[in-house]
Amino acid sequence: MKNATYTIGVDFGSDSVRCLVVDTADGRETASAVCAYPRWKAGLYCDSSQNRYRQHPLDYIESLERCVREALAMCDRTVVDNICGISFDTTASTPVLTDKQGTPLALLPEEAENPDAMFVLWKDHTALAEADAINALAARWEVDYTRYCGGTYSCEWVWAKMLHCLRNTPSLQTKAYSWVEHCDWICALLAGDTTPETIARSRCAAGHKAMWHEAWGGLPSFEFLTAVDPLLGIFRGHLYRRTVTADTCIGNLSAEWAARLGLKPGIAIGMGAIDCHVGAVGAGIVPGTMVKVMGTSTCDILVGRHEEIGNKAVRGICGQVDGSVLPGYEGFEAGQAAFGDIYAWFRRLLAWPLQRIAQSDPALEERILGELTTEAEHLPLTIDDPVALDWHNGRRTPDADPRVRGALDGLTLATSAPALFKALVEATAFGSRAINERMLEEGVPIDNIIAIGGIARKSPFVMRTMADVIGVPIRVTGSDQACALGAAMFAAVAAGIHPSTAAAQQAMCPGFSAEYRPDPARHALYDRLYARYLKLGSSR
Amino acid sequence: MKNATYTIGVDFGSDSVRCLVVDTADGRETASAVCAYPRWKAGLYCDSSQNRYRQHPLDYIESLERCVREALAMCDRTVVDNICGISFDTTASTPVLTDKQGTPLALLPEEAENPDAMFVLWKDHTALAEADAINALAARWEVDYTRYCGGTYSCEWVWAKMLHCLRNTPSLQTKAYSWVEHCDWICALLAGDTTPETIARSRCAAGHKAMWHEAWGGLPSFEFLTAVDPLLGIFRGHLYRRTVTADTCIGNLSAEWAARLGLKPGIAIGMGAIDCHVGAVGAGIVPGTMVKVMGTSTCDILVGRHEEIGNKAVRGICGQVDGSVLPGYEGFEAGQAAFGDIYAWFRRLLAWPLQRIAQSDPALEERILGELTTEAEHLPLTIDDPVALDWHNGRRTPDADPRVRGALDGLTLATSAPALFKALVEATAFGSRAINERMLEEGVPIDNIIAIGGIARKSPFVMRTMADVIGVPIRVTGSDQACALGAAMFAAVAAGIHPSTAAAQQAMCPGFSAEYRPDPARHALYDRLYARYLKLGSSR
Repeated sequence: MKNATYTIGVDFGSDSVRCLVVDTADGRETASAVCAYPRWKAGLYCDSSQNRYRQHPLDYIESLERCVREALAMCDRTVVDNICGISFDTTASTPVLTDKQGTPLALLPEEAENPDAMFVLWKDHTALAEADAINALAARWEVDYTRYCGGTYSCEWVWAKMLHCLRNTPSLQTKAYSWVEHCDWICALLAGDTTPETIARSRCAAGHKAMWHEAWGGLPSFEFLTAVDPLLGIFRGHLYRRTVTADTCIGNLSAEWAARLGLKPGIAIGMGAIDCHVGAVGAGIVPGTMVKVMGTSTCDILVGRHEEIGNKAVRGICGQVDGSVLPGYEGFEAGQAAFGDIYAWFRRLLAWPLQRIAQSDPALEERILGELTTEAEHLPLTIDDPVALDWHNGRRTPDADPRVRGALDGLTLATSAPALFKALVEATAFGSRAINERMLEEGVPIDNIIAIGGIARKSPFVMRTMADVIGVPIRVTGSDQACALGAAMFAAVAAGIHPSTAAAQQAMCPGFSAEYRPDPARHALYDRLYARYLKLGSSR
Repeated sequence: MKNATYTIGVDFGSDSVRCLVVDTADGRETASAVCAYPRWKAGLYCDSSQNRYRQHPLDYIESLERCVREALAMCDRTVVDNICGISFDTTASTPVLTDKQGTPLALLPEEAENPDAMFVLWKDHTALAEADAINALAARWEVDYTRYCGGTYSCEWVWAKMLHCLRNTPSLQTKAYSWVEHCDWICALLAGDTTPETIARSRCAAGHKAMWHEAWGGLPSFEFLTAVDPLLGIFRGHLYRRTVTADTCIGNLSAEWAARLGLKPGIAIGMGAIDCHVGAVGAGIVPGTMVKVMGTSTCDILVGRHEEIGNKAVRGICGQVDGSVLPGYEGFEAGQAAFGDIYAWFRRLLAWPLQRIAQSDPALEERILGELTTEAEHLPLTIDDPVALDWHNGRRTPDADPRVRGALDGLTLATSAPALFKALVEATAFGSRAINERMLEEGVPIDNIIAIGGIARKSPFVMRTMADVIGVPIRVTGSDQACALGAAMFAAVAAGIHPSTAAAQQAMCPGFSAEYRPDPARHALYDRLYARYLKLGSSR
């Protein structure tokens, strides 16, 4: 019998990094450790009033070392000796300006405290003006570079962010030679060479965040970038044309990093990718299955067969990239700009009298959503119920529009707090349904949903409502760490343990902790309430 | 010098009756007493789950005696000796079935406990089916009997209610000879003769509640009523053709009732009328001035000059009757189905966590609206603020529609409880503005508003918002008892002390306790928010 083999999946989240050691035969978690970013935790380099969120490269390096070592410390020697690969997922677009060696500028002593020399976290919104300029130019350019990102380039994405850093700190203009996404940089770093022109670049990040597409020969042209700003044009020659999917082995662990992490040198390094996409693989995505990451907002991932999709661009979705999720399939990303955030908004609204009138213990606020759920579950469902719009944070998909707003409709003098909570939960489910219906209209089938994320595991009421509203079964992944597990699967393919991502999923996917099947009678009534939701939305 | 003279104004409200003794020279309140209806207070004959609200005629008689005697007990002998008239206002439509002598059937011993033999209070909604039948027939009848009540006959009005009582208790069909409104019956009773065919009938109640109009010769035809139900047709010959305005002396106090009340026999009895209409007179209504009764809902009263109105019917208002308010002028009634009720709804919503989570003292809930007001007053006013619709209880005016519902629009994750309260206050003001704009469109001028009722006196925030939204000055009446004062004015005209209602108003109207003048900059911004309100409403 062959020795058991193991891989490491590393998940760089917004606040911390998690390291998971996994048995490649069955996906069983052998060890796990998590480490918060120390500078980020101290609130450094950020200004939430400006929506400025920066992360220091040392935060990533130091916490990676700590959490890998902690996880390995939990493993037997035989496990550590049989670790044969490591892969990463990160947030995105989280890029940084680099020098000619590909070193993030904040790692240069003189820029160590300069936020514009650091990684610009996905949710940073400082590059609004730069995104506007890119969109204005794209709208009149001969090639439609926004064709595969729903027609709008976001201020959360790399080109806008890098231009903003250069404009905001002109002294960086002579030092910045190129840029790199977090998921590309960390792989290259561990493989021992970060040269911008030659390192492997994630298909997933390139396609979803940098307007990279085969149809126009990779990144947008030098002419286009220069027309946005000559500062961007300069990058064009210092970047990439080729990108690789996450099952690719991009190199081997360098001796230096093997020593720092406590691993064997030479083990396979898989190509990094974006967290939700890797999580979808970890949760078991296949064509026909949507993986829905449900938290404060949602990220909805789908894959389609090329023979069905052709080179068609799905209208009004966030992103569509060949191989961004499962190699060999078209990957789609959609999402709702607010999901759990809407429930939290209602909790804050109802907490107002607790704070202002009763001056009660803040711990009481934590009980509001639970009590609302208990009452809302027992309310009857009728066509005359209040209906809400889930656009409190604008709309991401379908048809991104940051200007639209949330609403509550159908109010009577008898409308209660639990009835409004029920309406808000239904609205978030209607928002999900609107995404699914757009995908179906555009020829991307969805037979079922796998849910991951905090809400999926914590709120059966939300999940049941979602299944009844959408009308397809929803299973909740059995893993708490779908993203890190997906990375471990990609590492197993990169290391040659499994011949394909599909084979790795087959062997390593966890089961499901719950399944919600739609109730046909409630689904029929929700068809009519959904029509009211659409009417409410279209009247805006 | 002539002796001072006094009149009594009696205001029959929903829960109690008030007696006001007033100096006819200056309207000064000499004495006042109030008495709750004993059976009503005990909850008898009502079923709120069925919206059934009945009042026993003995409640009116007993509490009238008590409160007049109490008020007189506070007066010097010279005052009592110089009381020269008495007038009444009551709720409406609050009718009762009578026998051939005009005696309410509940005063017959065998019907003393039968709710269908009692007065049917204005807010009773048991006659929905009967109102539907009347409206269905009216829609295809050659004469449009709903022309002056906005196109819809309400289930709160007399024909529907009387038919419902007869259908619900068939044994009453042989006993019921006629019907009478509360405001007609009480005058006739005190004058000593209640014969249905000959007693004076209030123009105000007849026109607003019984589809009485000169244009079609009085009440709807025998043929129409019989076509609704032969039970109604029978009444037609036992009712009236002529009606009189509230300045008319309809008779003199009988010896019996003089003794019961402690007054001189023979003093003038003025024609009764509906409370809001009489209150408008008491508050000082003139052409160009709207009197707005602001409480849980609103009742909005206007008068117009015949030479300006002609025989035109204002579209979509509640009622329009010659002489219903000020004799010699066209009287208009409009209103909002919910006003203070909407603030109370929001208070209940926010009280939910106090009750369910904090189990706090119910007295804390009483502080919610005050605290919301304090914070809402300091919020900036911008075009992007949330906008609400004030239709939580349907819409009364303009264009009655009980099916429409309230809404909250323009919500973001940052929308706070005070911001929503501000939006709800603005929505009630927008609802008021919609009524005013309809009146203006239809050629009925409104230069200013006089506000009466609880909210007018208690909430400067609501009143300032209203002035800024509508753009006309609003004065708050100085009297707590505008209705009873209005009745005392009519009594003074009926008794011949003042030659006309206008002269009585001139002498007896109270001053104002506050005035709110619109801020031009805020009014300009509210023009734009009002446009959003209209758009939100029209999308329904």
